[in-house]
Order: sequence, then structure tokens, then C-alpha cells
Amino acid sequence: MENKLAKWSFKKTNNKSAVSIRSVLEAILEKVNEKDAENGRPLIHLGRGDPSLFPCFRTSPVAEDSINASARSAKFNGYSPATGIYPARRSVAEYLSCDLPHKLSPDDVYLTVGANQAIEVIMAVLGRPGVNILLPKPGYPFYEVRAAFSNVEVRHYNLLPEKGWEVDLNGIEALADGNTIAMVVINPGNPCGSVYSHAHLQKIAETAQKLGVLLIADEVYGHLSFGCKPFVAMGQFGSITPVISLGSISKRWILPGWRLGWIATIDPNEVLKKSGIVECLRGYLDIGANPATVIQGAVPQTLEKTPKDFFLNINNMLREAADSCYAKLEDIPCLSCPYKPEGAMSMMVKLNVSLLEDIDDDMDFCVKLAKEELVLVLPGIALGMKNWIRITFAVELASLEDGLKRLKAFWTRHAKKQSCTTADGA
Amino acid sequence: MENKLAKWSFKKTNNKSAVSIRSVLEAILEKVNEKDAENGRPLIHLGRGDPSLFPCFRTSPVAEDSINASARSAKFNGYSPATGIYPARRSVAEYLSCDLPHKLSPDDVYLTVGANQAIEVIMAVLGRPGVNILLPKPGYPFYEVRAAFSNVEVRHYNLLPEKGWEVDLNGIEALADGNTIAMVVINPGNPCGSVYSHAHLQKIAETAQKLGVLLIADEVYGHLSFGCKPFVAMGQFGSITPVISLGSISKRWILPGWRLGWIATIDPNEVLKKSGIVECLRGYLDIGANPATVIQGAVPQTLEKTPKDFFLNINNMLREAADSCYAKLEDIPCLSCPYKPEGAMSMMVKLNVSLLEDIDDDMDFCVKLAKEELVLVLPGIALGMKNWIRITFAVELASLEDGLKRLKAFWTRHAKKQSCTTADGA
Repeated sequence: MENKLAKWSFKKTNNKSAVSIRSVLEAILEKVNEKDAENGRPLIHLGRGDPSLFPCFRTSPVAEDSINASARSAKFNGYSPATGIYPARRSVAEYLSCDLPHKLSPDDVYLTVGANQAIEVIMAVLGRPGVNILLPKPGYPFYEVRAAFSNVEVRHYNLLPEKGWEVDLNGIEALADGNTIAMVVINPGNPCGSVYSHAHLQKIAETAQKLGVLLIADEVYGHLSFGCKPFVAMGQFGSITPVISLGSISKRWILPGWRLGWIATIDPNEVLKKSGIVECLRGYLDIGANPATVIQGAVPQTLEKTPKDFFLNINNMLREAADSCYAKLEDIPCLSCPYKPEGAMSMMVKLNVSLLEDIDDDMDFCVKLAKEELVLVLPGIALGMKNWIRITFAVELASLEDGLKRLKAFWTRHAKKQSCTTADGA
Repeated sequence: MENKLAKWSFKKTNNKSAVSIRSVLEAILEKVNEKDAENGRPLIHLGRGDPSLFPCFRTSPVAEDSINASARSAKFNGYSPATGIYPARRSVAEYLSCDLPHKLSPDDVYLTVGANQAIEVIMAVLGRPGVNILLPKPGYPFYEVRAAFSNVEVRHYNLLPEKGWEVDLNGIEALADGNTIAMVVINPGNPCGSVYSHAHLQKIAETAQKLGVLLIADEVYGHLSFGCKPFVAMGQFGSITPVISLGSISKRWILPGWRLGWIATIDPNEVLKKSGIVECLRGYLDIGANPATVIQGAVPQTLEKTPKDFFLNINNMLREAADSCYAKLEDIPCLSCPYKPEGAMSMMVKLNVSLLEDIDDDMDFCVKLAKEELVLVLPGIALGMKNWIRITFAVELASLEDGLKRLKAFWTRHAKKQSCTTADGA
């Protein structure tokens, strides 16, 4: 019999309106052929939040020691419980509790395969016909991807560039309805580099309470704040409305390759337990992928023993990079950054194509920039922001400055004649 | 506003007819209270295929060295491509190619978070309204769990205990119809310990070809064969019908805690590529969890440098354990094992409750055995096999024999009076 597989039409599981950052960057890179790169310049990747390959951003030796100890102990080679091993959950609970008015229990923590799986789990748990979720625009497109997969309708609320990318709280109330189940807030902000004040976070929590929705606090960049505002955990407002915090060791410890994230419920009123969400979470993790046990075994030492100097140094490097990037962009007239980042690893930059000779839009800009200058940045369209670009500044300063130099050369070459005058400051 | 979460009814994502082995075992263990365990005997876990905690089953030092080297290199702390890093995929492709008539390319290999995620991915890719899949009974219930989640109808074909748990090929043709998309074959067999001959595997492939379905070869226990029949890879028949092989380092390398598995397409006629399944697979992995990069970095050394003696020793221990278990069960009249295992880590044993005084069924047997003797075995009902039990013999021999001694004591205590005479051999 003829093989029947041809009769079904297999298509990519993610729909076209929601694509991962990884696939957009890979698609751009595919257009860079070897000829483009033949002058031997290195590719400068300002497209993803992963500085782990730069020696200055190397994780602390404590982390390397701890995974070695975990493997050598032979205690963590076996299967893990669905929610993670107790010592690792306890350690995450203690870490998070430092920022909260009450202590979390290890049972409030669920370990995941990085924060991406945490998003997958949340969407699967919340997904049911008719519900909708409020997501920030711009935000992190993996939410859109997983919402589409779990049949959760997405409604975007705006972040306001002129107000440091704060949440447009007035807009939110108009968006929500009786089927709105949750609201996602990313702080420190990906992709904008914003850090929200205590007062703004409290207002967000009060809005969520008013709407009767769950607050999902994406704190993947937690504590990566290097401006004047300290990082404030959304869980501080858990008694106002139930909070689910998502985090990971990927960013603060520069260890995305360990794939170790978490979901933490901060819910003193036990709304999540009473509604069945907690049981549902456990049920999903029981049938989903779990993070490697040998890495879970390394979590307590990594979280508890990494020296404070390591974090200080990372934040200092990020501040220096953000400042340098912001300053150098001022010399490139087709790009304007409405806000100097105070946290996280990236910034949103507005692209004025009318100043450029032969660039159609942000995607065209990014593809030509990659081909001509071997500099990779993320087109805003991947975040629903046409004619913006996202620049990740979490790279070694010398590379960043080289990348911005090439960006300026690209501008000079593509600037409209009449604009050139402006570009030269005339 | 009152929080609206209460208005939706959140329930566990997996339905009641499909539960994970882990959750069944945890439910039984929850019934064992501290008082039961007060005489200080250790719990003997004959319920799961994970011997990693026994010193004699400890993984090779090569694996420990390789993860240490991977972490110390600082090359594998970053994000991985969706299908896995090239050196790890190349290494898996070379490993699998040793058993095949043609060489696999690294691009035929997709790394997953253990073989469980491989099952999740396959079900998600195949899932669409109306399709059905053929699964072995008994089998590995994670297939049923993920099929239910992805809306794939399950149809069970029988394995025949009297024929060494071979596939009931006649029964299969009656089960399949125009909507049958694939057939799963587990070899070496979980839970039966069977190892299929070259001739039987060829017949299976020919049946799949006749039905026009994809063959999913679960080879998680690949090369763990210790009887007279060698392990034969299903991929040998990839030119008859397209084969997707699932594997992992969990069993042969005794490293379930590393969560490193794979999907390999063995399909010289490119049916999977032409049908779009390959693109769909990549799309799903792009939005799903990926195995830790630091572990992927340890794969080449672990696969290529683990000494042959390590594998020989593991197989010798498994053979000794299987033989001992089989022999000792002959002294327990309420249990009968139709087949002495030749591979993998477990066996199926028939329970005759009519010989027991106060045992209702397999679940009752397992709960009382756990409470009274601190011995844990899996009730057959978890595999759709009422009044069977699954015993995992992959434990240190002394523990296994202690467990079987307690099992015998349990039998003696619960045997019906008239049966006791038989039990004593009269």
C-alpha cells in the first residue's frame, strides 16, 4: 500500500503570526552567505540575550564546581519528581523569599526546563475555549507562540515609551472582559530594558485585582537592574491578587544552557489552590519534560554560593554597555531610542525608514545589515512592532562598539542624499 | 472584583484513563505511612526502570568526566539550536549508524529532553482530528498520556505472552483503518523484557508497509539485550516503511537524570521529508523545551568513550537479576511469569487473586505489599493489564532478592487456607 502519510497535510505547529525569536534570527542568518563574510570579520550578534560566550560574561566558577559536584556525587543521575527535587525547590524558595514580605515554601516552587517551559506550562494550564490573556506590546513573543498552541486568545496592552515603557493601565481596562484570565507583566523589561517602580507595580496589581485576573510576573531578568530603581518583586503584591512568578538561572547567572527555570506561586490567600490551578500545574508537569536532575542537584550551591561581586560585576558591565549603546545610537539619525535602559539586556529602537535610500522596513533593514555588516539585530516585526528593532547590548563592550560602528557605516551608506546632510550634523 | 479564577474549572490535564507510571507509584507510596516503615527496613523499589542509585549500576566515570569538561569549557552555557548542537547530533547519528545498513546524517537526529519528550513531540506532530495510532498492550503508558493530550485516538494491539510477547500481527490488520497514521513498537520490550528477532521485526515492517503507516521504534532499551537474541535496530527496515527511532542515554548509560534523548528518522525514501513531517518536527522543537546545552556538550565523549566493559557488565548484571527474579517467582504460586526476560529492565507477571485470601485485584495487591513489606511494584492496571504486575529487576541483586523474599512472605501470609497446601508443594 502507498504510504498514507502524504494524505495528511503536515504543517509547522506554530502559526505564522507567532514565531519564535530563534527562528526569525536563524532565517536572517540563512541569508548571510559565505561570500558576505569573506572579509573575515566576525559576526556580531546583537539579537539574543545570551552573553555566555564572552569571557567577561562567563558564569561564576561556583556554578561550574557545583555541576561537577552534582555529577560526581552520583546522587542526581536518576529521575526527578515531577515538580523538581526538594533541595533545589527549597533553595529557589529561599532565594525568592528575600524579596517578599513572607517566606515561600518549597512546595510553592515548580522547576521547569528554563523559563520557556514555564510559559508553556502556564499557557497549557490556563488554555480553554474562549479565554483571553493580556500580553505587553512589545514583549517576549514566546508567550504568543504558546498561547496560540494552547488556544488562548491574546490581547495586547501597550507599553508607553514616553513613560519609560510603563504599562498603559487605562488601556488595559478597556481590553479586558469576563473571559480575561490573566495578565503578563515582564519586569525588568524584555525587550525595553525598563525597571518598574514599587508604585507602578502596585498599580498594576490593583488593576489586576479590579479585573479579577491572575498576575503572571515574568521575572526572568530579576535583579538585573542597574539604573536608579531597584528590582521590586511582583510577589510583594500577592495579597492583592494572586501572582505567579516565572524565573530562571539563565540571565542573572548567565546560564541559559542549563535550562533551569521555575514557576513560583505567591498567593497568601490561596486563590490558586482553591481554583484547582495548583493541582493542574502539578498534573501538567507530571506529563511534561523535567529539567535534568544533575542540574537540579547543582542549584543549591549555585544559588547560595555565587559571590555578590559576580552579580555586581555583571550589572556594572550591563550598565556600561547600555550607556555606550544609547550614546552611540544618537549618532545614527535613522534610529532613535526613546528610553535609556535601566535593566535586563536589550532596548527598543525606532527605525525611520524615510531617511534611508533603499530600505523597505525593519526586516529589510535587519537582513541587509546582516549581509553587509555581519551585525545581527532583531526586527521589531518579530515583536509586533513594525519599523522598530531590538538591540541586545549584553555583549562584550569591544564587540558592541564594533557592532555600533558598523551600524553607523551602514547608515552612512544607505542614508538618503538629502538626509546625509542632516546625518553630518548640518 | 472577586477573582474570576474560581469560575473556570481547572482539572488535571491528563484524563483518568491515561496516567503516568510516576503518579501511580507516588499514589501507592503515599499510602505507606511512617508507622508501616517503623521497623527500619528499607523500601525496595521494583517499580521503575532507574537503577542509578545502586553503586553497582553507577554510570561510567567517562560520563562524569565529560559533563565536567563540558561545564569547564564554558562553551555550552548558552542556548542551543532547536534540534540540538551539531557535535551531539553527529555523535548520536554515528552511534545509531553502527546498527544500520546506511549512515545517518546529523540532520536525521533531533535531540530531546529524554525519550519522554520525544514521545510528546511525535504525538504533537501526528495529532489531528480523526487519526489513530496503534500501541502495544502491554506497553509504556506515557504514549497513552500524550496521545490523549494531542487528540490522537489509541488502538491497542496485543503482545502475545505465549510467543515471547511478540506482536499479534494478525490482530493488527483488523485494528487499522484509513485513519491509522502510525504504529509503535517497543524493542527491547518495556514492560515485558522481550527482544525481537530479525525475522519478527521484518514482518512488523512489512505489516506497517501493507497498512501504509509510519513505524515508531521505541529503542530506549536498545542494546540492553542479554539473552540469546542480539538487539536488531528497526531502522534496518527503513526502506520498507519509514522508521522514526526514539532513544536516550537514560537506560544503557544509566543516566535518566541527564534528560537526553533523541528522535532519529531512518527513511531512505524520504517519505517523512516529502510529507512535511520533518518540517513539522523542527517547528515543534523550536517552540518546545530543549535539553540542557551543557549536557549536549557531554554527549560526544559519553557516547564515544564509554568502555565496552561497562556495557557488558550492565548486561551481565541485568541477566543475573532477571534469572534470579524469574526463578524465585516460581516459588510464589499466586504469581506466574510467562516469559523469562531477555532484555530491558522489567517483566510482566500474572497475578492469580483467587489464590489469595483478602486481595481484590492488582492495585490492592500492590498497595498492601507496599504497606506491609515496603516493596513497591507497578500494578498492571497502570498498563491496562488488570491482575498483572510489572516487576523491575534492574536493582542490586541483594535488594532484589530481599524484595522477592518479602514478596514470598506476603504471599504466605495472604494465601487462602486451601491454597496454602498448594503453596507448600503438597
